[in-house]
Amino acid sequence: MEYKEAQAKSLLSLDTPCLVLDLDRMDRNVHRLKTHLSGLGVSLRPHLKTAKCVEVAHRVMASPAGAATVSTLKEAEQFAAAGVRDIIYAVGIAPGKLDRVLALRSEGVDLIVVLDSLQQAELVASAARERGDAIPALIEIDCDGHRSGVPPYETERLVQIGRTLVDGGATLRGVMTHAGGSYSARGDEALSRCASEERDAVVHAAQALLHAGLPCPVVSVGSTPTAHFARDLSGVTEVRAGVFVFFDLVMAGIGVCAVEDIALSVLTTVIGHQPEKGWILVDAGWMAMSRDRGTAKQTVDQGYGLVCDLHNNPFDNLIVVDANQEHGVIALRPGANGVLPDLPIGTRLRILPNHACATGAQHDRYHVVCRDKLDVEAVWRRFSGW
Amino acid sequence: MEYKEAQAKSLLSLDTPCLVLDLDRMDRNVHRLKTHLSGLGVSLRPHLKTAKCVEVAHRVMASPAGAATVSTLKEAEQFAAAGVRDIIYAVGIAPGKLDRVLALRSEGVDLIVVLDSLQQAELVASAARERGDAIPALIEIDCDGHRSGVPPYETERLVQIGRTLVDGGATLRGVMTHAGGSYSARGDEALSRCASEERDAVVHAAQALLHAGLPCPVVSVGSTPTAHFARDLSGVTEVRAGVFVFFDLVMAGIGVCAVEDIALSVLTTVIGHQPEKGWILVDAGWMAMSRDRGTAKQTVDQGYGLVCDLHNNPFDNLIVVDANQEHGVIALRPGANGVLPDLPIGTRLRILPNHACATGAQHDRYHVVCRDKLDVEAVWRRFSGW
Repeated sequence: MEYKEAQAKSLLSLDTPCLVLDLDRMDRNVHRLKTHLSGLGVSLRPHLKTAKCVEVAHRVMASPAGAATVSTLKEAEQFAAAGVRDIIYAVGIAPGKLDRVLALRSEGVDLIVVLDSLQQAELVASAARERGDAIPALIEIDCDGHRSGVPPYETERLVQIGRTLVDGGATLRGVMTHAGGSYSARGDEALSRCASEERDAVVHAAQALLHAGLPCPVVSVGSTPTAHFARDLSGVTEVRAGVFVFFDLVMAGIGVCAVEDIALSVLTTVIGHQPEKGWILVDAGWMAMSRDRGTAKQTVDQGYGLVCDLHNNPFDNLIVVDANQEHGVIALRPGANGVLPDLPIGTRLRILPNHACATGAQHDRYHVVCRDKLDVEAVWRRFSGW
Repeated sequence: MEYKEAQAKSLLSLDTPCLVLDLDRMDRNVHRLKTHLSGLGVSLRPHLKTAKCVEVAHRVMASPAGAATVSTLKEAEQFAAAGVRDIIYAVGIAPGKLDRVLALRSEGVDLIVVLDSLQQAELVASAARERGDAIPALIEIDCDGHRSGVPPYETERLVQIGRTLVDGGATLRGVMTHAGGSYSARGDEALSRCASEERDAVVHAAQALLHAGLPCPVVSVGSTPTAHFARDLSGVTEVRAGVFVFFDLVMAGIGVCAVEDIALSVLTTVIGHQPEKGWILVDAGWMAMSRDRGTAKQTVDQGYGLVCDLHNNPFDNLIVVDANQEHGVIALRPGANGVLPDLPIGTRLRILPNHACATGAQHDRYHVVCRDKLDVEAVWRRFSGW
């Protein structure tokens, strides 16, 4: 289906499965976080790994030039080609990637790398000297032990990395952290605590660098839960967040959004029934939804997604309980009372995803709808790969 | 990276993460199943949903014209454009998809649909009459209660569906089933039992149709485990299987293949360490591996994949224990004794996937290598979407 053709379509005629983006919900989500961060006096550097789409980026960034965060060099290259000029590549840098980093920088993109080891600092400094480009780097801080980064109390290591960059001819741009641990928290108090621990870790690290006489202009934090529940971001200069643009069932389970805020859904068609088992089969399997089962460990397990009608109204307790590659099995939530709705073959439904980043990645375009209408207002490409 | 460029590359220089296909292993896997089925007197109709690649299809199909099985109309269209003329679209047909089916059929493709309800039979027959094309259909049989299909003992319903097709102007091509339940079996005896139950179900259904005076030229079974463990396929005309081409850790866990048979891997680069935790960070997260955790319920949980050196030799007990979008966390298998190998930043590794269909789907090309060499012999495109 060509793009122009799709624009004349509606949710009643699109080929299924496909990805639907509710523009009103998205705009509301973006407005909410921008307002909150503005009240805290920090800027938003959206993480574009969730959307991977220029049109979405334009609605989220402060300006067409950025700032932005990406998770792959492909994203950096695609957004740079669309005019973004201020980008953090937020995954630890490997030596084999410096050529692509330098190529983008030579085109005028302020592409910032991330690292957490002396070895990486030496590699970056060495490339900076050889190529005559004082590559800027952020030192990643491990605020909650969930992934990479220097623990904030290891100030000696931190200062050594910073000094290696500065003395070696690279630029120490500052520190960054990601409170991935907040994904397993729940409720206002716990999330606010994650946010202040995230802030404390990175501000402590920044102070250690400054105390050693090193520069630290950027103090960057970021995760969708902590971004929304932070009460005080003194010392922080910017917040990175990505999934807030669309939200998803995992975020609803954590308590960061309501189900009604989820802007992404998969349009699907009923293709069969197993009435004895209480099953409705649809053409959205794991290929369309992704294999992400992020709600499995939450209080409410949403299976492979929550089933809604064409206007995104959820059916009571109706979820995708199982998925093959191109088959989704819809049934009442295990243990739920209720009656299976009558949804004959050919009925179109929308399924809200567990994880917007993972479900989005299974598709190459967004079908954009507005204000509960069924018309497709626009088709926006999204890209993938590395 | 352009395709020609990649062809001059090696596993030492490719951008990571990316997908690597070991051609010798693939050819050996294909030869093994073809030899086995040839001994049983049935033909192979490979399921191309795993590979989604014309070059792979050409090495698996009996001829460039087919036969083939697909899981989406996009696959049907792509393979038809490459000359495949005999295709089963093996997912229950929805009314909104008949236009694309008819368009392919009008180009000379014998595209066969699948259905399991009277309503679908009526829709297909009605389209057949209106468009003057006696669309061929297979009735799906539910051999093990795991998904869609008519239970084989419901002969009245089966005959009614068959008669609706025939009397309505469509073609009853036969019956098909998929022993998805075999994925939770293990060992020779259990798998052979699944295979004979699969055979019995579909042969019983075929006999019921024939007994009612209806045609049933095709009797089709298919799943990778049952295809390999079937001892007698009397009454069956063809076998569909897909993942056998590449195999994966789930299949190794079931006992259908050895780890050394797995032809697909993800090339990755070490990007960090957390020595206190025993972690090695790599640039293959769930975006490169997929979120598939198919081995989680097996005897040996392989996390997000088994870690190998560049020549595909597995490290002892080294797996991807956790994954973020673009970060993989490598560690020793929980509970395993052993020493974490010394893998400095920049080291390249290969990771064997849980599920070849899901991991493949995260990538747009195969980097083909042969006989444990590091040179990339070819780059084969793979497609995605619907």
